[in-house]
Amino acid sequence: MSASTRLWDKGEPLDARVARFTVGRDPELDGQLIAYDALASAAHATMLRKIGVLGAEELSGLLRELAACAAEARRGEFGVAADEEDGHTALENRLTARLGDAGRRVHTGRSRNDQVIAALRLWARERLVELTGRLLDLVQQLLSLAEAQRETTMPGYTHTRQAMPSTLGHFFAAHAEGLLDALPWIRTAFAHVDRSPLGSASGYGVALPLDRVLVAELLGFARPQANTLAVQNDRGRTEYLLLAVAALIATDLGRLATDLIGFSSDELGYVRLAAAVTTGSSIMPQKRNPDVLELIRAQAARLRQRQAEVAAIYGGLASGYHRDLQLTKEPLLEGLSGVIDLVAVMGRVLETLQVDAERCRAALLPATAATDEVYRRVAAGQPFRLAYREVAADPAGAVGSEGAELWRARCHLGAPGALDLHDYRAALHEGRQWVATKGQHLAAVWALLTSALAPDGDAGGEP
Amino acid sequence: MSASTRLWDKGEPLDARVARFTVGRDPELDGQLIAYDALASAAHATMLRKIGVLGAEELSGLLRELAACAAEARRGEFGVAADEEDGHTALENRLTARLGDAGRRVHTGRSRNDQVIAALRLWARERLVELTGRLLDLVQQLLSLAEAQRETTMPGYTHTRQAMPSTLGHFFAAHAEGLLDALPWIRTAFAHVDRSPLGSASGYGVALPLDRVLVAELLGFARPQANTLAVQNDRGRTEYLLLAVAALIATDLGRLATDLIGFSSDELGYVRLAAAVTTGSSIMPQKRNPDVLELIRAQAARLRQRQAEVAAIYGGLASGYHRDLQLTKEPLLEGLSGVIDLVAVMGRVLETLQVDAERCRAALLPATAATDEVYRRVAAGQPFRLAYREVAADPAGAVGSEGAELWRARCHLGAPGALDLHDYRAALHEGRQWVATKGQHLAAVWALLTSALAPDGDAGGEP
Amino acid sequence: MSASTRLWDKGEPLDARVARFTVGRDPELDGQLIAYDALASAAHATMLRKIGVLGAEELSGLLRELAACAAEARRGEFGVAADEEDGHTALENRLTARLGDAGRRVHTGRSRNDQVIAALRLWARERLVELTGRLLDLVQQLLSLAEAQRETTMPGYTHTRQAMPSTLGHFFAAHAEGLLDALPWIRTAFAHVDRSPLGSASGYGVALPLDRVLVAELLGFARPQANTLAVQNDRGRTEYLLLAVAALIATDLGRLATDLIGFSSDELGYVRLAAAVTTGSSIMPQKRNPDVLELIRAQAARLRQRQAEVAAIYGGLASGYHRDLQLTKEPLLEGLSGVIDLVAVMGRVLETLQVDAERCRAALLPATAATDEVYRRVAAGQPFRLAYREVAADPAGAVGSEGAELWRARCHLGAPGALDLHDYRAALHEGRQWVATKGQHLAAVWALLTSALAPDGDAGGEP
Amino acid sequence: MSASTRLWDKGEPLDARVARFTVGRDPELDGQLIAYDALASAAHATMLRKIGVLGAEELSGLLRELAACAAEARRGEFGVAADEEDGHTALENRLTARLGDAGRRVHTGRSRNDQVIAALRLWARERLVELTGRLLDLVQQLLSLAEAQRETTMPGYTHTRQAMPSTLGHFFAAHAEGLLDALPWIRTAFAHVDRSPLGSASGYGVALPLDRVLVAELLGFARPQANTLAVQNDRGRTEYLLLAVAALIATDLGRLATDLIGFSSDELGYVRLAAAVTTGSSIMPQKRNPDVLELIRAQAARLRQRQAEVAAIYGGLASGYHRDLQLTKEPLLEGLSGVIDLVAVMGRVLETLQVDAERCRAALLPATAATDEVYRRVAAGQPFRLAYREVAADPAGAVGSEGAELWRARCHLGAPGALDLHDYRAALHEGRQWVATKGQHLAAVWALLTSALAPDGDAGGEP
Repeated sequence: MSASTRLWDKGEPLDARVARFTVGRDPELDGQLIAYDALASAAHATMLRKIGVLGAEELSGLLRELAACAAEARRGEFGVAADEEDGHTALENRLTARLGDAGRRVHTGRSRNDQVIAALRLWARERLVELTGRLLDLVQQLLSLAEAQRETTMPGYTHTRQAMPSTLGHFFAAHAEGLLDALPWIRTAFAHVDRSPLGSASGYGVALPLDRVLVAELLGFARPQANTLAVQNDRGRTEYLLLAVAALIATDLGRLATDLIGFSSDELGYVRLAAAVTTGSSIMPQKRNPDVLELIRAQAARLRQRQAEVAAIYGGLASGYHRDLQLTKEPLLEGLSGVIDLVAVMGRVLETLQVDAERCRAALLPATAATDEVYRRVAAGQPFRLAYREVAADPAGAVGSEGAELWRARCHLGAPGALDLHDYRAALHEGRQWVATKGQHLAAVWALLTSALAPDGDAGGEP
Repeated sequence: MSASTRLWDKGEPLDARVARFTVGRDPELDGQLIAYDALASAAHATMLRKIGVLGAEELSGLLRELAACAAEARRGEFGVAADEEDGHTALENRLTARLGDAGRRVHTGRSRNDQVIAALRLWARERLVELTGRLLDLVQQLLSLAEAQRETTMPGYTHTRQAMPSTLGHFFAAHAEGLLDALPWIRTAFAHVDRSPLGSASGYGVALPLDRVLVAELLGFARPQANTLAVQNDRGRTEYLLLAVAALIATDLGRLATDLIGFSSDELGYVRLAAAVTTGSSIMPQKRNPDVLELIRAQAARLRQRQAEVAAIYGGLASGYHRDLQLTKEPLLEGLSGVIDLVAVMGRVLETLQVDAERCRAALLPATAATDEVYRRVAAGQPFRLAYREVAADPAGAVGSEGAELWRARCHLGAPGALDLHDYRAALHEGRQWVATKGQHLAAVWALLTSALAPDGDAGGEP
Repeated sequence: MSASTRLWDKGEPLDARVARFTVGRDPELDGQLIAYDALASAAHATMLRKIGVLGAEELSGLLRELAACAAEARRGEFGVAADEEDGHTALENRLTARLGDAGRRVHTGRSRNDQVIAALRLWARERLVELTGRLLDLVQQLLSLAEAQRETTMPGYTHTRQAMPSTLGHFFAAHAEGLLDALPWIRTAFAHVDRSPLGSASGYGVALPLDRVLVAELLGFARPQANTLAVQNDRGRTEYLLLAVAALIATDLGRLATDLIGFSSDELGYVRLAAAVTTGSSIMPQKRNPDVLELIRAQAARLRQRQAEVAAIYGGLASGYHRDLQLTKEPLLEGLSGVIDLVAVMGRVLETLQVDAERCRAALLPATAATDEVYRRVAAGQPFRLAYREVAADPAGAVGSEGAELWRARCHLGAPGALDLHDYRAALHEGRQWVATKGQHLAAVWALLTSALAPDGDAGGEP
Repeated sequence: MSASTRLWDKGEPLDARVARFTVGRDPELDGQLIAYDALASAAHATMLRKIGVLGAEELSGLLRELAACAAEARRGEFGVAADEEDGHTALENRLTARLGDAGRRVHTGRSRNDQVIAALRLWARERLVELTGRLLDLVQQLLSLAEAQRETTMPGYTHTRQAMPSTLGHFFAAHAEGLLDALPWIRTAFAHVDRSPLGSASGYGVALPLDRVLVAELLGFARPQANTLAVQNDRGRTEYLLLAVAALIATDLGRLATDLIGFSSDELGYVRLAAAVTTGSSIMPQKRNPDVLELIRAQAARLRQRQAEVAAIYGGLASGYHRDLQLTKEPLLEGLSGVIDLVAVMGRVLETLQVDAERCRAALLPATAATDEVYRRVAAGQPFRLAYREVAADPAGAVGSEGAELWRARCHLGAPGALDLHDYRAALHEGRQWVATKGQHLAAVWALLTSALAPDGDAGGEP
């Protein structure tokens, strides 16, 4: 084919394309990691000083400059040039430009591999605490809704069909309980990343008497992850696990979104969505669309796939680092931030949700109370199968006028007639304490940088 | 198109096809669940007796028959006919055939929905303990190999390229540590399923004073899962979480398999696979193929997809039960059994593995020790960048003859020169205790059935 | 852990477990492939005779026995013993048992690798024609429904919200057109598998003057797939492509199922599902659940994952055969058969579907005609933005009483007011011809076996 | 929890977060679509003029402005502000700002839904032609390598084990043939998107006598896609299909990358990668890592998941548009551009690849020729099973010194000894013609805009 028919050829030199391909989205993504890389570098440098690799002045210069970089990064002012490949290189360039050899020397005893993992774990640890905090806010909203709607009769569904009378309060409580189930998984994920990778270098350590325990302590990690090759093999795997937990929560929210899309439909109208979370149509004047809920549903589906994406990338690799693992960064950064967004946005949906108790109750078809009617007859002495047969012959007719309220007779543990929110509030309280304790612990770690900037000391504060 | 050209038409009546489609693989799969369904039914019946729904004789008849069914199921003699749809129906049919109304009455106060969940959780709880036990066996094998090969010099790889001298012992220890990381995830999964669903019925409870706490206690569950709709919403989700943990372990094994396929290749020959885990070729006389390791690798990939499959099935559903959820059973049953198989089969591979220490050491290219040489010069006072530049000019030449042994100088925590297996043995011991405690607890639960068969009492024993 | 706490240990010897693990589900799955393997073997043997490897009597003995095996397999009477590993071995064992050396010799010049691929492609070719035939049946049903309901006014939806008045006929026609889109993809898939792999052996050919073109002709393949390594590299890839097409169709059916589940809900009631495709509830007397549609939806989700499963298994492999590829057989066999089931079962759903035209029309909210009202005013000379603003102020009020019928004014190509089914019927006719032509071609191929059984000639007929 | 422990709270107002969440990456992604949207808008406007909705001057003003926008977009100068939500809004804003009511009026008779689909299809059509052109370049490179290395003896592998002697030429030819298999799939994908969606509006048409055939002709589409709801239902589905084809090609390249990573390893050394496609290590002076090939492998895995992502998003939806579909845009844009990148980058790898024929031949173990030796004995009259048994007893010993060259005796169609590249060159030629024809056709379509800018006429040229 002659050159003239190559419509698409923009004349990009081949090696420029290779470079662009190799760098990928790192310069853009790494903006979030710079501050954490600076923090990890400060701990590594402090340890290098202790084992005699750095002098005292070199260390204080490094700490000052790292604190400044972290502060800039948090203000969104620390740029990564495309030709710097990634944020870690940009940070190193900056240190070298300002401090000369001391800047170069901070890389002694580590490799890019453990450096990246350290920054990602420090970032992820904070995100997990943030996620928990926001999740508990959402649970609290759901419990308030459950409390407020505990008497709001509505159809309970199975198979998208009216099954038995229930209440809107029971529905909200179900979602609250479901979200609380995620807490142990978040904590297990937290413990998984709460181990220091530093000192593993490229997977085989270095011939220096590194004090890995000290570095772990400085960064507030529970302990170092021991075997240096195991640290590298955990790359991708950690991302997979974090995204499994993120996807769990996202899926619960996606299902809640699906419920609310249905409940707010023209035909059901159990709830109304606020203008703030719906959009109009450029062509149809009467339309208000549940775009925000649809996007929550779709982002949940996407998050599940991002977990699968990470699994597909790291799952087939032999031991040790491979460049393939670079591609696990985007799913993690977007996925973990993304689920936090989902929680926050769902919070806004619930905050502005209006309930139409009238339509909830009116929607209930008489026949829906048939099961309760059967059990009422059983309680009155009739054999179950006879009661079932009689009611089945004419379900709507058999049910008395008060059928819609028969959920009140279902009052064993967990049933609509016995909505007990006490245990959830206890779980909520315990969760809040975990968030507070971990939050303080993680905030304290940043003193490593802030103390370097005293007396003003504000630049290196926690993000 | 005339009938004569319909090659494929086997004349299956349409509704027979619909029935076959609806039933799916349930009759075949449910064989594993019958005993657990019998156990759960025994607990439910015991509770029904307590609240007066069943008489004392009805209960003792039910317990006896359930114990007999469980025993048959465990001997593989409890068949499910295709027209019985699933194992739960088959069990009910049997009870009714033998006990009449008492058999029918055991279904009072529950639905097929909570019945299925109960059986699956009881099954899964035991599988998680079994998985842990076998996993610890494998870790122990890996640690023995690590111990035995702690002095076996070999190349350490990154990017499938020789990176630094290392040891085979360090490699095995890395895999042992990686597998130990799964333990907290398994325990979190165990806690997730260790909650009784019984009494949730079809998601909205029943109008009977069910004692859900008693049922939970009888089955050794930590507690009931409260909100009845939350129980139903957990269907699919539990399967997703269990398979996330199974896939985590399977992927670690898949990567170990990938390593060993490479290490045992004609060109590397670091290890040799036993005949028991290789196969020959019908056409090539010289061939021994690592089929078992290849299948471990492939099954790991498959298991990751089965998790995604469950997520795809349940993730898009509104709250409450939908028949879609039937399709999450096969991935769970095959996936959780499958990962146990992978662990056991990998154990056989390792048990019969032979190491060729000579080839391990001979494979190491001199240049691979370049990094150690740089650090040796740094230790002798040369600046890092100068040392790096000098060594980089002629890596192989710069390295002395003892380069292959330089891993000994990397002796900080987790490096090849300081292989410390002590912590792993502690984790192993703690894991063993968990398995023993849980194993005894789960075994004790079966007394609910075995005691019904006294004095012979062997039929209802644990599976 | 002491042996006594190993609840689960059933004492399976380790190598039995390894063997079970290695064999997997092959003996069960291969039942469908035996006849196709026999056919491919017949072609291979005929070629071996031509190049002098087999004698004339050896060939006629082989053809007779292969025809008998194919006939047995089709009657479901050709069993594969577990210790025979797979169907190909079972067939070879049978030939050897009956014919001695001639039986062994049929394997000259091929390997298990090309033998498996040949059987799979012959099987898949017929399935694709079958799938097309059934798909066209379904399209025809949808077109009949479209024709019958072309005047049935109902709400057209976007965002699960009433958008504009439409018709049920337009809805059915949309699904018909969507399914017709699959035809070019099916044909591309057919062409992909319509190439003979035989002679590629294990990927590098054999040192015999194989006549690969003759074998291709005997089996009715368009041509041989040339490069012998390319044939092996196509393993997994072919499965991936076939499942991509199957998943495309399954997803369309899944979405139709989702539509019908909604349309048949208690609250909408636009259509009613027949008892034959719904199920009742053991606890709720009034319930009829759309289980069959839910399973179609779920099977569609599953099929998408089976495609991903195949991709995950073959995607990471180096060139050449690996045992991993064994695991691509189940997804293909189940997936391609599965989508045919979905089409057939959906056909039954549509065949028994009842429409409630009254509820369709009654559901339409007046405001839904707002867009049409705007365009009516525009047509009457009002500027669009003014009309939009006026109507938006009170959508329901602005619309006249005949709003529901305003879809009739949308009569450009493809709109509800101009439902033209003519093109679809043409596509249908063309599709039918393809099915007839290919069907006859594929049926004719079986003469290779049937002629061996003359004069009775019935045993080797097409399946 | 007190505000002070909310480390992460950056004070983003909730509705700003909702807005950011709703807009997503659209402003960034839409840069690539503006020119195509302008082109589609030009065709729509031309049709509106014909049916009398627009005046002649309005049309010429619109065409001029659209041409200017397209030209700016192609120079990367058409910015989309974050508060404009997406590129389509930005384009409309621009037209309105410049042309007033005429700018607004171009939206008459369409909705955002068909507008987006039109732009995506126009974009995708060009990408498919570009992909084909680049793919054929790569095939040509592979064929040149195959030609050059047709005599380069090397081991042929199965199971990552030496299987039979083969040649490097045969290996390259296998990959060339594999890539050519993608052509029919690309063409089917092209035909799928080569249908005009315009006029479908939001899925139910509009009450105007739109001339959909004219619009299709103006845009060079083969025809309109008829049923207006079918057009909307194709959203997501088209993306799924395009990505299935992209993933097919990416996976082939990923497997080639895997092969070359192995072939260029320290231990095999069959090929050497150029510095331009490898990177060094900051810690290990001797290292050159195959990062580019690793990223090709990983991007292939990722692309497979992006297809699954689209399937997960659209697969569970009811008919009609839902906002979920917005999330299918990124996978399509990145995936289709991404596979083009992979092809181009692999081209650079091959262009700079050096072969070490010595190491290729030296690596071949004598026993690898055992199968050829068996067949040599068979040709000399020995029964196969006897020959097999004798050779198997001592494979290496049985093979003569010229064993490595025995691939020459395998000279049937497709075997290493009969490498015939003729057919590939024919396929290549035919492919080139398709690219040229389609390329010219697609380029001609842009005249709709360029002619509006005459006499200078350069601004609206094809991208």
